[in-house]
Amino acid sequence: MMAKKVLIVFAHQSSASFNAAAKSAAVEVLTAQGCTVEVSDLYAMNFKAAATAEDIKGDVKDAEHFRYQEETRLAWEEGRLVEDITAEQTKLTEADLVIFQFPMYWFSVPAIMKGWIDRVLTCGFAFTGEKRYSQGLLKEKKAMLSFTTGSLESMFSSTGINGDMNVTLWPIQNGILHYCGFQVLPPQIFWAPSCASPEARQTMLEGWRSRLAGLLEEKPLSFISLDCFDPKAFQLTPDVQEKHASQEFGLMVGIHLGKPLPPQNQMKAGC
Amino acid sequence: MMAKKVLIVFAHQSSASFNAAAKSAAVEVLTAQGCTVEVSDLYAMNFKAAATAEDIKGDVKDAEHFRYQEETRLAWEEGRLVEDITAEQTKLTEADLVIFQFPMYWFSVPAIMKGWIDRVLTCGFAFTGEKRYSQGLLKEKKAMLSFTTGSLESMFSSTGINGDMNVTLWPIQNGILHYCGFQVLPPQIFWAPSCASPEARQTMLEGWRSRLAGLLEEKPLSFISLDCFDPKAFQLTPDVQEKHASQEFGLMVGIHLGKPLPPQNQMKAGC
Repeated sequence: MMAKKVLIVFAHQSSASFNAAAKSAAVEVLTAQGCTVEVSDLYAMNFKAAATAEDIKGDVKDAEHFRYQEETRLAWEEGRLVEDITAEQTKLTEADLVIFQFPMYWFSVPAIMKGWIDRVLTCGFAFTGEKRYSQGLLKEKKAMLSFTTGSLESMFSSTGINGDMNVTLWPIQNGILHYCGFQVLPPQIFWAPSCASPEARQTMLEGWRSRLAGLLEEKPLSFISLDCFDPKAFQLTPDVQEKHASQEFGLMVGIHLGKPLPPQNQMKAGC
Repeated sequence: MMAKKVLIVFAHQSSASFNAAAKSAAVEVLTAQGCTVEVSDLYAMNFKAAATAEDIKGDVKDAEHFRYQEETRLAWEEGRLVEDITAEQTKLTEADLVIFQFPMYWFSVPAIMKGWIDRVLTCGFAFTGEKRYSQGLLKEKKAMLSFTTGSLESMFSSTGINGDMNVTLWPIQNGILHYCGFQVLPPQIFWAPSCASPEARQTMLEGWRSRLAGLLEEKPLSFISLDCFDPKAFQLTPDVQEKHASQEFGLMVGIHLGKPLPPQNQMKAGC
């Protein structure tokens, strides 16, 4: 087996945090397995979050009516993206696996990590209008979310006040990771470590270390192949819909066909 | 009727954009109705997105193990948050309605707007552990999303490749807006204006102007009252679950009880 390269995109302000410990565990266990691990420590890097015209070197095509996706696609083609973006794109190009390590802020990633997503996953580099989802340009790579919550697990259920965590994960895992083609590994969720005892936190980290040992051989979550959708309106083709009509559950959290959501669809492989 | 105050949190880089036109339409129509309209133009303000220790004036409580939510809660109590945050909090305190106007980036808000959410909706100011959801500290106010997509409407359906837009909206409308108590008005979605003709874009803006004329009288989306959940695990109480057991659909997108999602739950009032 070839030695694998791993990129950890890390967003926590403090090196004494649980998130930092989870990141360090990943570096240690994966390195011990012969992986090369690179960490993008976004707060330490003071990573720029806002998507602006300054992300492009030289003139933009239409300064009057600036359109970020169009302008950065062009700049990418012409090698005119700024260095902090291209440095991350180089790390990403080399990586076999990307781990996003963060505390969940407002049911999503912290703004600084959203900035990494908005700025680094450039059109042309990570996807195009034709090459997205199962054909996304990063389809040879794996990616996963590893995060802490402030809420208890019970609150993130289909009868809990925050609602089903699978629903919260869908826009991130389908709309960002799978959109670029990534094979998405099941998320690593650390439920409310700040409410847990030091022993319970230690147990969480030990569980993560055990998982890390076999992470590169894990089966990714299932998504639907791009060719199951018509190429114009991007609706499931009639034969796929017919084939699924008698099933109890929808195909995926978002692509639910008006049926109950397939349980654990965004949490466990094969669901 | 008292004159209403409206805050528009606006995130687009260009004043020639469709988003800018939608924002200007809101300013114009609402002002003509006697509202006082304030705009936070995040890119123009170069609004800081990252949640850091610099958001606090003076010493933090635990520099070694810096915890953003805890530290900013304390700083809010003691009047030690930095000026760009308190200025937004003042605008928010005065507002009866907040409109978030933005282009959807990666199934969510742009990073600069996520930064506004992460930094301005401070614990203690917008919510506490006890006062959240239907008891959230901003429960006297209304809020809504108004955004453009890059994708066609057909792609954001329960048989489309992006999945049901109601699922994508849930973490934002429930997990951010309703979490703080906001009464959430149905979203204004401009489907792929960049793919539309100038006439079609004009029609979209006219539709928005018509809606704005009656916006302040609109019925908000339905959410579930905090007292339907037990105060420990925050699960729906047995009587609420029993009462709903024979229903065809789940209660909400996230709180679906293993049933099909109530159609248009995050898009239309009364669904």
